[in-house]
Amino acid sequence: MDDRKLLETIRPLIGTAETADDCSMYKLPNGQILVASTDMLHETTDFPDGMTEFEMGWMSVAVTLSDIASTGASPAQVFVAVGLDRPERLVPFMEGAVCCAETYGAVVAGGDIDSHQELTAVTTAFGIVDSAVHCRRCGATVGDLVCITGIPGRAQAALDGRAEYRQFLLTPKPQVEAGIKIAKAGASSMMDVSDGVVISLYDIADASSVGIILDEASFPLFEESAYAKTCFLFGGGDFGLLFTASDAALEKLETEYTVIGRVVCGNSVRMGEEVLPRKGYAHVWEC
Amino acid sequence: MDDRKLLETIRPLIGTAETADDCSMYKLPNGQILVASTDMLHETTDFPDGMTEFEMGWMSVAVTLSDIASTGASPAQVFVAVGLDRPERLVPFMEGAVCCAETYGAVVAGGDIDSHQELTAVTTAFGIVDSAVHCRRCGATVGDLVCITGIPGRAQAALDGRAEYRQFLLTPKPQVEAGIKIAKAGASSMMDVSDGVVISLYDIADASSVGIILDEASFPLFEESAYAKTCFLFGGGDFGLLFTASDAALEKLETEYTVIGRVVCGNSVRMGEEVLPRKGYAHVWEC
Repeated sequence: MDDRKLLETIRPLIGTAETADDCSMYKLPNGQILVASTDMLHETTDFPDGMTEFEMGWMSVAVTLSDIASTGASPAQVFVAVGLDRPERLVPFMEGAVCCAETYGAVVAGGDIDSHQELTAVTTAFGIVDSAVHCRRCGATVGDLVCITGIPGRAQAALDGRAEYRQFLLTPKPQVEAGIKIAKAGASSMMDVSDGVVISLYDIADASSVGIILDEASFPLFEESAYAKTCFLFGGGDFGLLFTASDAALEKLETEYTVIGRVVCGNSVRMGEEVLPRKGYAHVWEC
Repeated sequence: MDDRKLLETIRPLIGTAETADDCSMYKLPNGQILVASTDMLHETTDFPDGMTEFEMGWMSVAVTLSDIASTGASPAQVFVAVGLDRPERLVPFMEGAVCCAETYGAVVAGGDIDSHQELTAVTTAFGIVDSAVHCRRCGATVGDLVCITGIPGRAQAALDGRAEYRQFLLTPKPQVEAGIKIAKAGASSMMDVSDGVVISLYDIADASSVGIILDEASFPLFEESAYAKTCFLFGGGDFGLLFTASDAALEKLETEYTVIGRVVCGNSVRMGEEVLPRKGYAHVWEC
């Protein structure tokens, strides 16, 4: 059982629309949309060994701001609930959390402090986006190009021991500015790739009722190797944005990105003729 | 070290205004205010023995909606992040969470699922309130009456083994409707009493730079006993609303409440001549 399967068990309770994106939506009276997201991280499974409290605080906020960024929204407020095994960890943790929030134009506006067996952090953030440019997972249209920002795979490589990429794992950078530009240019769908590129492409394909075909030769890899390609496709922890857009939209887009494929009819994610497995990062229970 | 003292260590980081209330504020373009709050609960310290998962889910949402209620806001969306030791606990937990949210007009709009050593839940909620009636802890004015809804103390009595009051402990009812009416009538300050009546009165007194004098004879007690009075003053877990209001505001107020004292000059909370100790519920670390 993993967290994606578990989510299926409560979809009827929460609603399909409410569980279809990383961010919720709430229509504001002036035609803007408030988007919000929440993420739970805890020490034994989410924070790599040797991380400082500052880095844990930064990462806790960054994962949620990355969700906000994937809608094209500007982050506004962040809430940080932290369960602490030792109270002296709070100040450096919150220094990292506040630093990350402020770097991306958000404010830590509240939180909760609890005692806990292990350091556990839940961040919730909301942001504001004009409804005309708001991006979701659905919306990808046959003929659109599939694009990605950054060089996914480096966080996975760092997890595997490649010290030169540790900064990408420990202090990931949510692509807030890129997300705003991509949405304004008129992308048809967007999400972040923190669970892995292929599994995120399946999320877009499922939500949009389309297939995706990837062009292997175009992948932005951190090095030319089969290992780097595997990290790119299936590694977790990176904060690139995956989006689909028409040629016309891409002409207006002024941010760095790589075209890695296109949207086709179907329901699978392929690389040439090969249907890629639906796998990426997941929380797993042994049962 | 307790969580209130620990909060002091990060006030310079977060800001005094941001840590002065249970809810944050965010001004919306139409003059309304978005209020939000987040709470972390976990099994070993927050959920009484014998609680069902449904009750845990209900309580997790209720504590946060109680914060929203204390501003006079209507709850809108709730986010539920849950760390699970056993995945089969998710469905009944979420049934309780959704039931509580829907009971008070809110929607569970998102969340996160994680594996964890013990069941840990963080709920974040936001609500909307007109800025003209938005209530905070500050605002209490000398001459105002001090009022409370409900009969605080029963949750503490249930914790002490009084089975007849268990419902008040296990499925507490956030006072959403009362909060809206109290704010609309023009209360000068409001907060919920989930940490205890006296400690909450100190929060209002501190934020408003006033003192409070209580009239012992007026307390709404669950029984006539010294024990019930202690539970009323210092017990935690109840969801009444504590508010201050002028006579003129109270004349307009159509909800049940009890006047328990008045706002005076000073900086203490007294019962007759006795200065009451600043104590209530707190998370404590042994250090």
